[in-house]
Amino acid sequence: MSGEDAPAQQQKAEDQKQETKTSEEPKAESKPESKSPADAPAASAAAAAAENPPQEEVFTYRSLVLSGHGGYDKVKLQVKKGKPTPKNGEVLVRVMACGLNFADLLGRQGLYDRLPSPPVTPGMECAGVIEAVGEEVTDRKVGDRVMVLNRFGMWQEVVVVLANHTFLMPEGMSFQDGAALPVNYITAYMMLFDFGNLRPNQSVLVHMAAGGVGIAATQLCHAVQDVTVFGTASASKHEAISEGGVTHPIDYRTRDYVDEIRKISPKGLDIVLDPLGGSDTQKGFNLLKPMGKLITYGAANILTGQRKNILALAKTWYNQFSINALSLMHANKSVCGFHLGYLDGEFELVSQVVAKLLELYGQGKIKPKVDSTWHFEQVGDAMRRMQERNNIGKVILLPEPKKEEPKKEEDKKEEDKKEEKKEEPEKEETKKEEKPEEPKEE
Amino acid sequence: MSGEDAPAQQQKAEDQKQETKTSEEPKAESKPESKSPADAPAASAAAAAAENPPQEEVFTYRSLVLSGHGGYDKVKLQVKKGKPTPKNGEVLVRVMACGLNFADLLGRQGLYDRLPSPPVTPGMECAGVIEAVGEEVTDRKVGDRVMVLNRFGMWQEVVVVLANHTFLMPEGMSFQDGAALPVNYITAYMMLFDFGNLRPNQSVLVHMAAGGVGIAATQLCHAVQDVTVFGTASASKHEAISEGGVTHPIDYRTRDYVDEIRKISPKGLDIVLDPLGGSDTQKGFNLLKPMGKLITYGAANILTGQRKNILALAKTWYNQFSINALSLMHANKSVCGFHLGYLDGEFELVSQVVAKLLELYGQGKIKPKVDSTWHFEQVGDAMRRMQERNNIGKVILLPEPKKEEPKKEEDKKEEDKKEEKKEEPEKEETKKEEKPEEPKEE
Repeated sequence: MSGEDAPAQQQKAEDQKQETKTSEEPKAESKPESKSPADAPAASAAAAAAENPPQEEVFTYRSLVLSGHGGYDKVKLQVKKGKPTPKNGEVLVRVMACGLNFADLLGRQGLYDRLPSPPVTPGMECAGVIEAVGEEVTDRKVGDRVMVLNRFGMWQEVVVVLANHTFLMPEGMSFQDGAALPVNYITAYMMLFDFGNLRPNQSVLVHMAAGGVGIAATQLCHAVQDVTVFGTASASKHEAISEGGVTHPIDYRTRDYVDEIRKISPKGLDIVLDPLGGSDTQKGFNLLKPMGKLITYGAANILTGQRKNILALAKTWYNQFSINALSLMHANKSVCGFHLGYLDGEFELVSQVVAKLLELYGQGKIKPKVDSTWHFEQVGDAMRRMQERNNIGKVILLPEPKKEEPKKEEDKKEEDKKEEKKEEPEKEETKKEEKPEEPKEE
Repeated sequence: MSGEDAPAQQQKAEDQKQETKTSEEPKAESKPESKSPADAPAASAAAAAAENPPQEEVFTYRSLVLSGHGGYDKVKLQVKKGKPTPKNGEVLVRVMACGLNFADLLGRQGLYDRLPSPPVTPGMECAGVIEAVGEEVTDRKVGDRVMVLNRFGMWQEVVVVLANHTFLMPEGMSFQDGAALPVNYITAYMMLFDFGNLRPNQSVLVHMAAGGVGIAATQLCHAVQDVTVFGTASASKHEAISEGGVTHPIDYRTRDYVDEIRKISPKGLDIVLDPLGGSDTQKGFNLLKPMGKLITYGAANILTGQRKNILALAKTWYNQFSINALSLMHANKSVCGFHLGYLDGEFELVSQVVAKLLELYGQGKIKPKVDSTWHFEQVGDAMRRMQERNNIGKVILLPEPKKEEPKKEEDKKEEDKKEEKKEEPEKEETKKEEKPEEPKEE
């Protein structure tokens, strides 16, 4: 077992109705819904919508709950009781896959103010099937396959959300792609095409080019003619990001990326996407050409370990980029801040962006890259993978329980293997969704 | 005479070759060039290009020179001797009209660091006819009618500039339009369409909507579908700016423009163009919707009188807008600084913008509005008109000497009239250019 197996345990939380269990898997058989609504959504949804199940069959669902701020073990798997009911304007979604984002990692450490205090269920995005609709919902129906974007709370088997937080998935899009798309692609799109005003022949710096936003941004850059993409990532990921469209991969661990970029593009860049914060924001600003745009959208530099690092926080804060009107004028530059988490009132704006993204998806110009999938029990390892920057693409969480077939005879050996290397992501032998990408070994 | 008649005097300056005269007009007859090259540009230019005039005919030209920092009287009319010769890549332009800009007013007070120390000739733009070309100039020829954009030095009868600082004027564009276009329209275009990324259905705040950039911005907004323009100006100018395309004129002198805008557009604005600086920059930032863009491009608030106002400077400086990365992220906003004077190395970028502007001009979508024209002798009054915000549109300077026909018999009366009201701009009875706009009374 990895050191972070605690999330697989279930744990009490005061203010949420829940059933506390110990080490026993929730009975999947007790659920009235099919596990593969994608195959027959209408039928399964109809079954799901059947009201008043016999009293002995209490509806339960798996939910990840942040029990307090801290390390990976603070996210616990719980089983909650009682089916949530959508109110006016809301829908109930059976979740098939969830996305993991940097904001979730920050939230776990208590560094993301859009996540309410624990106990709380994290998760800003998921994909699934609508199982029930509340009153006044006219544009969604039971059986619709949807992507969902929400401020938090998506890491559950079922969720209730406002209907205008859901987006219809096109035919043929897998739930994993649906869960991987919203946060990363909306973020990349709005940064590049709204603030960035990206046009042909321009140049863009994409930090963490193998991350979710990095890959989305790289793909979106190539929706425009002759855009040059500079991408930072550790050397082991260069082949992958080059294949993904990065023109100049830069190993930020062994080289000074500023020097490398200046060598290739002495005049600088048109757009810098900055997810790092701290002194890297200033470096990005300095790298801009006249009329260049710096778009800062994170502070990944404060995430240096699994628990809050006061020194990293202080350093990032101390080096935080600040600028006045006169300096901006003399430089002829633009500085923009973006965080999707603070746009949660802007349904219409976000819907327009999703419509454009789905158009690009339909044209084959964008395609989420899934790094690995992890069951809810493995959420700690999933977070570790992202936090230690071992992923290439999106890290996906699956609500369905991990299957444990080989456990009986090879129990002991498994334990030993897990001591050696961290728990592996599921290789996805399941049939219901083709996996876009094999998980990478660390 | 107005109190600021001193510019009509000529004055010594050490480091520029010049002929010092007193009160006598330069002999226009002595110049070999025709005064109307637009009518027969090739012929007049050929004459101009004739080298080595007889020694007794010394070439002289009128030039406005800033003799020191201070009030309107610091800009003196001088007559310089000896024809400038274009070197490699340069052209000699016979100037027919010059634009007056806010930067020139700041420069006079010593507040514009792109203008070298006095004595120096101000002026960032003009229009005229090429009279000679230097070596290696292949895309300009004698007789070409051009607009010129330069860091300074354009307020002269003849100027030598790099050929790539000139832009061919389309057929039918007057020299006054040509002199009114570059600074204001390039500024407005780059702010709205590069930093601002203006799109249909958006809303824009244009301060000083009756000024040069204000009118240009208003026209350019209407090159995009269904853009709402909020424009500030004193009440007397509201009719003019409404006709020019301002949807909601706001009298900033009697109303709080923030309140007025919030009443009409409670969610705020997509773009704010800020030429004011000081606390108005923060107000503009607060008025933005999520994804909104503030573009700051001046500090008109520091210009409160004809001489440097230390209190206004201190106040503007103290209230100068400053922002850090985190606040930008939480707000999902963009802050941009623009100043054309600091873009003088970017010929290619600027040329592309001028090409687009000339396309819009050809389509009738933009048309410079000339407020008034003033001869070089009247530069003090021209500056006063702009600085006191009495203009509606562009203030233009004409190098040609002011005609004084009625002087002889009505000499005495004229003097009396001038005491009553400030010197009037020339009503333009000349034939060679039709005047787009009658000068407005103050």
